[in-house]
Amino acid sequence: MTQATTNGLASRVNAQVHIIGAGLLGASIGLGLREHGVDVTLEDASPTTVALAADYGAGRPRLVTDPAPDLVIVATPPDVVADVIERALTTYPHAVVTDVASVKLAPFEELTRRGVNLTNYVGSHPMAGRERGGAIMARADLFAARPWVICRDADTPAAALSLVEAVALDLAAIPIEMSPQQHDAAVALVSHLPQAVASLLAARLLDGSEQHISLAGQGLRDTTRIAASDPELWVQIFSANREPVIEGLTALQGDLGELIAALQQPDQPGSRRAIADLLAAGNRGAARIPGKHGSSERFATLTVLIDDRPGQLAALLTELGDLGINMEDLRLEHSPGAQIGFAEIAVLAEVAERAVTDLKERGWTTL
Amino acid sequence: MTQATTNGLASRVNAQVHIIGAGLLGASIGLGLREHGVDVTLEDASPTTVALAADYGAGRPRLVTDPAPDLVIVATPPDVVADVIERALTTYPHAVVTDVASVKLAPFEELTRRGVNLTNYVGSHPMAGRERGGAIMARADLFAARPWVICRDADTPAAALSLVEAVALDLAAIPIEMSPQQHDAAVALVSHLPQAVASLLAARLLDGSEQHISLAGQGLRDTTRIAASDPELWVQIFSANREPVIEGLTALQGDLGELIAALQQPDQPGSRRAIADLLAAGNRGAARIPGKHGSSERFATLTVLIDDRPGQLAALLTELGDLGINMEDLRLEHSPGAQIGFAEIAVLAEVAERAVTDLKERGWTTL
Repeated sequence: MTQATTNGLASRVNAQVHIIGAGLLGASIGLGLREHGVDVTLEDASPTTVALAADYGAGRPRLVTDPAPDLVIVATPPDVVADVIERALTTYPHAVVTDVASVKLAPFEELTRRGVNLTNYVGSHPMAGRERGGAIMARADLFAARPWVICRDADTPAAALSLVEAVALDLAAIPIEMSPQQHDAAVALVSHLPQAVASLLAARLLDGSEQHISLAGQGLRDTTRIAASDPELWVQIFSANREPVIEGLTALQGDLGELIAALQQPDQPGSRRAIADLLAAGNRGAARIPGKHGSSERFATLTVLIDDRPGQLAALLTELGDLGINMEDLRLEHSPGAQIGFAEIAVLAEVAERAVTDLKERGWTTL
Repeated sequence: MTQATTNGLASRVNAQVHIIGAGLLGASIGLGLREHGVDVTLEDASPTTVALAADYGAGRPRLVTDPAPDLVIVATPPDVVADVIERALTTYPHAVVTDVASVKLAPFEELTRRGVNLTNYVGSHPMAGRERGGAIMARADLFAARPWVICRDADTPAAALSLVEAVALDLAAIPIEMSPQQHDAAVALVSHLPQAVASLLAARLLDGSEQHISLAGQGLRDTTRIAASDPELWVQIFSANREPVIEGLTALQGDLGELIAALQQPDQPGSRRAIADLLAAGNRGAARIPGKHGSSERFATLTVLIDDRPGQLAALLTELGDLGINMEDLRLEHSPGAQIGFAEIAVLAEVAERAVTDLKERGWTTL
C-alpha cells in the first residue's frame, strides 16, 4: 500500500494532508511527509509562519481550489486545540482529523461535552520536541525512533487509525496505542514533572552570584537544559493536565520534605539512612529509563581513545567504515587543551565484540 | 620554573607528589601528573585500589625508602578527609597538604577545633567528576578546562599556594580562589541542589508503569542522569554541607508549594501568571549557566547536515582537517533509521565564519 515518490522514498500515506499550525511540530511533520512525496497544505493563524514553513519545504499554502483533505493534522498550541479540532471536523466532514497536542484527555472531554461527533477524530501525540519552537527549528527527523502515542476508541474506524499510524511510520516514529488517561498519566511523569523540576531548579540560580555560577558543570547543565522551554506553552500544558501533574508534584513535595527533615536532624538515628534511601531510590528510578535508542539491549557502546593529533577522529570513523561497522551514535568527550579524548560510539550489540577486536588489531585503544 | 619530561610535556610541578586515596579523583590526578613526568606515589586504604591505579599509570606504590613528599594530595571520601589531612600534616611536617573534597568549611572547622597547625594546608576542590567512581574510571583529562577552587588564607605561604596552583594548571584546570564559605555556598547551588533534585525526580519513576516509562525522552534522561551517582558519597557530601543545602532545598520547597497551589486553583485570578512567572524565572536562571567550554563567547557551533551515506561524518571531519579548522567538540544528532542527521561542531569563534564559507564551497549544507 505504499506509493513510490520522485525522491525514491516510499510513502504509506496515500492521501492529501492538511496541517493546521505550522510551528515546530506542524512544520516538522510537513517536512517529513514532503520527503515521502505526500502533498501537504499548510494553514496557520500567522500568514508569516505559513510562508516561512513553506519556504522550508514543509508544504504549500492551501488554495480555495484545492480538494478537501483526507487527513487534517492539528498542531496548534494546546489551549486552542479543541476549538481547531471541532472546526476541522465541521469544515472537512469526510476527513480524518488528528492532533499532536501533548495532553489528550482534556480536549477529548471538552469536545464530548460540546456534543461534537468524534468518529473521525483520532488523538495522537508524537513524543518529540526541542527547547526552542517555531518552523525555523523544524526537522524532518524530529520524530525518528520516538514513540508516537495514538488514542483510539471502540468507534474509531480502522481506516482512520491506519492513516494516523501511516503518518507516524512515514516519519520513522513508533506508534503506541494508549487511552487518553494512560497517556496523560505517563506524560505527567516522564515529561511534565521533569519540566517543572528543571524550571524550579534553574530559577534557584537567580539567587547565586556570578562567582557561584562560574563553578557550574555538566550536571547542572543537564538538569536545567529543558528549563529554557517556552513558559506560555508550558502554562497551557500544566493547566490541561492539572490532576496528574499535581499528583506528581505533591509526591515530590513529600520526598523533598523528608530529605530536608533528615538533613535538619543529622544526629537523629536513621537520618543518614533516610537520605541514603532517597538517593538509592533515585538510582533505581534512573535505571528504569530506556537508553537513547529505546532499548539499551539493542546497542552497545565502544569507548575509543583519541589522541590530540589532527584527524584522529576522522581516521577512526573511516576505519569503522572500512570494517563495515555502522555507527548508530557518537559522543565525543574531549576537553579543550586536553591531551586525549574519548569517542563513545554506539553500534548494534551483535557487532560490538567484533568491532573491539578489529579496532584493537588496527592499533586503537578501546576502554 | 617548568621541567621538561621524557614525553615532552613540561611540568609546573617540580616536586615529589604523594596521593592518598586512589579512586576516581586521586587516580585521575596521578594520571595527569604522570603525563608531565612528575614522580607520583600512591596510598589507599585498599591495597587492591593502589595496585589498580598503579597499573593504570597513575603512579607507584610508596616505598619506605622514598624521601618525604613535597606535596600530599588527600583524595579520600569526605567523611574521613579531616582525619587524613591531620595525619598527613603530622607524618610529613615539611610537606604542603591539600585535599580535593567537595565540601571545604566542615573539614577546616574540624581541624581548627582539634588545634591542628594548618599553615601548610591549602584546601582545594576540582569541579570535576563522573557518575561512576573508582580508579577504573580515571582520566588524565578529567579536570581540563574545569574550575579548580583553591581556599587559601592570610597565613598560607606563597610557595604552598603556588604548588597547588601548579597541579591545577598542569592538569589544564582553571584555578579560582575562594573562601571555604563562598565555595560551599556555590557548590550547594550548582552541584548539591541539582543532585538532590535529580535523585528525587528519578525516584518518582518507581511509581510509573513500564508503559509510562516507555515514553521517556531526552528531557527526562538529562534531568535524571546524575541520579545514578553513589548514594553513600552523597550522604557524606550533603551532611558535610548541611546548612547551604537545607537553605537551597527550602527555597525550592517554597517555589514548589507555590506551583502546586497555583495549579490547584486554576480559576483564581493570577494563577496562570504565577505559573508563568516560575517558568520564566527558570528561563532566566538557565540562561546564566556558562556553556560547555566555560565561556560561550569563545566558541561557536556549526551545524552541518549529514546524510545517511556511509562515511559522511568521516568525510566531513577529514575536510575540516584539510581546511585547518580545529574541532573543539562534536555532538551528533542522528536517530537510527532517520534519513539525515546533524553534526554540531564547536570551533573557535574567530574561525567559525570561514569554516561555514569553506564548507559550503565544498558542497556541505550548514544550518
